[in-house]
Amino acid sequence: MNDNLKLDAQLRFALEIDRLKEVYRQTRLLNTNRRENSAEHSWHLAVLTMVLRDYSEPGIDSLRVLHMVLVHDIVEIDAGDTYCYDEIAVRDQKVREQEAATRIFGILPDGQAREFRELWDEFECRETPEAKFAHALDRLQPLLHNYHTQGKSWLKHGVRVDQVLDRNRVIKDGSERLWREAERMINDATGKGWLARE
Amino acid sequence: MNDNLKLDAQLRFALEIDRLKEVYRQTRLLNTNRRENSAEHSWHLAVLTMVLRDYSEPGIDSLRVLHMVLVHDIVEIDAGDTYCYDEIAVRDQKVREQEAATRIFGILPDGQAREFRELWDEFECRETPEAKFAHALDRLQPLLHNYHTQGKSWLKHGVRVDQVLDRNRVIKDGSERLWREAERMINDATGKGWLARE
Repeated sequence: MNDNLKLDAQLRFALEIDRLKEVYRQTRLLNTNRRENSAEHSWHLAVLTMVLRDYSEPGIDSLRVLHMVLVHDIVEIDAGDTYCYDEIAVRDQKVREQEAATRIFGILPDGQAREFRELWDEFECRETPEAKFAHALDRLQPLLHNYHTQGKSWLKHGVRVDQVLDRNRVIKDGSERLWREAERMINDATGKGWLARE
Repeated sequence: MNDNLKLDAQLRFALEIDRLKEVYRQTRLLNTNRRENSAEHSWHLAVLTMVLRDYSEPGIDSLRVLHMVLVHDIVEIDAGDTYCYDEIAVRDQKVREQEAATRIFGILPDGQAREFRELWDEFECRETPEAKFAHALDRLQPLLHNYHTQGKSWLKHGVRVDQVLDRNRVIKDGSERLWREAERMINDATGKGWLARE
C-alpha cells in the first residue's frame, strides 16, 4: 500500500469512529440528566487508567491498558450499546460485535487492522492482567456514576443487588483494592434503597 | 496520606472530570448537527495518536503523547472552551486556564497532582517532540471535521483562509506529512468556498 493510500485509509477510520459519539449508554452524567455516550465513556476510562494504575497488578503494561480502553467500545458503532442487564439483547451481542470488529477495524491498513483487532480480542477474552485491569475500570466507572446519582439508572430499570454483585465481581480479578471500594458502594447503595434486594 | 485518603482523592478527581463532557466546542460531529464536547474530542485525539503515530518524529514516547492528549482539555471544566478565532476571549485564556489547572489537578494526591500538571504544562509549552505531535493532532482533528462538514463552522463564523493557515501551521512542527495533508484540505476548502479568501 503506498503512502497516500495508507494515510487515506487511516483518515477514513478517523472519520468513521466519530460515530461512537452518537452511541448512548444507560449511564448518566453526574450533573445533568443526559445519558453518557461511548466515546466520552472511553475517555473517562483512559484517564482512570492513569489515575488508578497503582491498584493494578505490579508490572502491568500501562500503554496496552490505555490502548484497550480506547478501542474497546468502537464495535458499538455497528452493534449498539447492549445494556448489561437486558438478558435478551445480551444473547446475540457476541455475534453482532464480532461482525462490527471485522468491518470497522478492517478500514485501517492491514497491519493496524490486525493490531486493533488483537487489542479488542484481548480485552474481550479478559485473560491477561492488562485486560483484567481494563475490565475492572470499565465496571467501576458506571458503578461510580450510579452510586453518585443515587442509583438513578438502577432504580429506573429495577436492578437488584445480586445482579450488580454478579456483574461487577470481575473488578476483583483486576484489582483487589478497587473491588473492596466497589463492594462498599454496593452495600451502601442497598442500605439506602437505590438497589433492590433479592 | 493513607491509602483510604489517597483513593478518596483519586475518586473525587474521577467524578470532577465528568464535567468535561458538558464543555462544548465549536466543532460539529460529522453526522449530526450537535457540537462536539471536549471529553469525546480528547478520546478522538487519543485514538488518532495510535493510528497516526508513524507520522511523528521517530523515537517519540507514545505513552507520553497519549497522556498529554487525555489531560490537555481538563482545564476547560473551569475555563471553558475558548474558540481559537475569538480574539477577545483568547486574551485572558492563559490566566483562566492556569487557575483551572491549579484547582482541578490539585484534587489529586500530591505526586499525581504534580505529574498531571507537568503533562499539561508540557503540552502548553509545545517544545518537546511529544507536545508538538500532540498539538498537530489537536489541530488536525477539527480541520478534518470542518473539511468533511463542508466548512460548517468556518462559514458560520466567517473564518478566512489566512486565519486557518496561521492557526494550523503548527501541525508542521509535529508532522511534515500531516501538514501536507492539512494544506491540501485547506486549499481545496478555499476553492470550494468553504473558507473566505483574504
